[in-house]
Amino acid sequence: MPTIDYDLLTRLETIIKGLKNKKIFIAIAESCTGGYVSNWITNISGASKVFERGVITYSNQSKIDLLKVSASDINDYGAVSQKIAEQMALNIRLYSNVDVGIGITGIAGPLGGTLEKPEGLVYLGFSTKKATCVQRYIFKTDRIRFKHQVLLKVLDFLESLI
Amino acid sequence: MPTIDYDLLTRLETIIKGLKNKKIFIAIAESCTGGYVSNWITNISGASKVFERGVITYSNQSKIDLLKVSASDINDYGAVSQKIAEQMALNIRLYSNVDVGIGITGIAGPLGGTLEKPEGLVYLGFSTKKATCVQRYIFKTDRIRFKHQVLLKVLDFLESLI
Repeated sequence: MPTIDYDLLTRLETIIKGLKNKKIFIAIAESCTGGYVSNWITNISGASKVFERGVITYSNQSKIDLLKVSASDINDYGAVSQKIAEQMALNIRLYSNVDVGIGITGIAGPLGGTLEKPEGLVYLGFSTKKATCVQRYIFKTDRIRFKHQVLLKVLDFLESLI
Repeated sequence: MPTIDYDLLTRLETIIKGLKNKKIFIAIAESCTGGYVSNWITNISGASKVFERGVITYSNQSKIDLLKVSASDINDYGAVSQKIAEQMALNIRLYSNVDVGIGITGIAGPLGGTLEKPEGLVYLGFSTKKATCVQRYIFKTDRIRFKHQVLLKVLDFLESLI
């Protein structure tokens, strides 16, 4: 049985309530986090009033199919890049017809990194009607804690909206 | 920081390795589990050799947009029904061009149930090239443990393939 982090649940409850009160709908496109962020958000009863959909675009083809990410940009910049995070966030927002789109692409590790793009590198795209911006982090830890660090950055962003 | 269930990770490692050896690719369409199943699968290093994509079709519109689930069937049978689980599993398999599609639709609770469709009800669709079938369960528990019970049924199914 899973262990439940009640402090985090309480933080998420406040965020969902705040977004709901402001009638803000969100959609999330995850790659390296594999559903971890969407899963936490949907742990809250009433999340359906805020969370419209998520996609877990693990393969390059799924990023092209579901998010219309540019295949030539994947080729030129790599799937783990500022360009792709930006397109993931913008396009999940537009195609889901929501207020806020979040795009996450990175290298969870423990393999797959390079000198230029090490394990733990992640780009987080945040798109609203006002702007689309990308944050870059390196979280050097194991695969599950990496996902958790990304979640905390997403929650910081969502709290900034309410 | 998240608590890590190492026994479950070991079970998942064996499943991922088995599917990889058989060159079986999977895709998952989740509704009520909100990414929980995909998240566990992607906790394993090398999951990208098996897990092609996931979608978290929380709203009815997202089921129609991403999975081409029949809007009239949603209207006639409800989003939580055998019909919709079947379509979710079949269509995520076909549209993702993979060997195995999994579709999950249910009522995680604690609200949203009816006499006919109580909280905890879930339909699990499993689609392979041979057949598409649906299992029905009622897991009367809290929201997070409900997701976990569903995961265990999905793992039973995946183990049956290897």
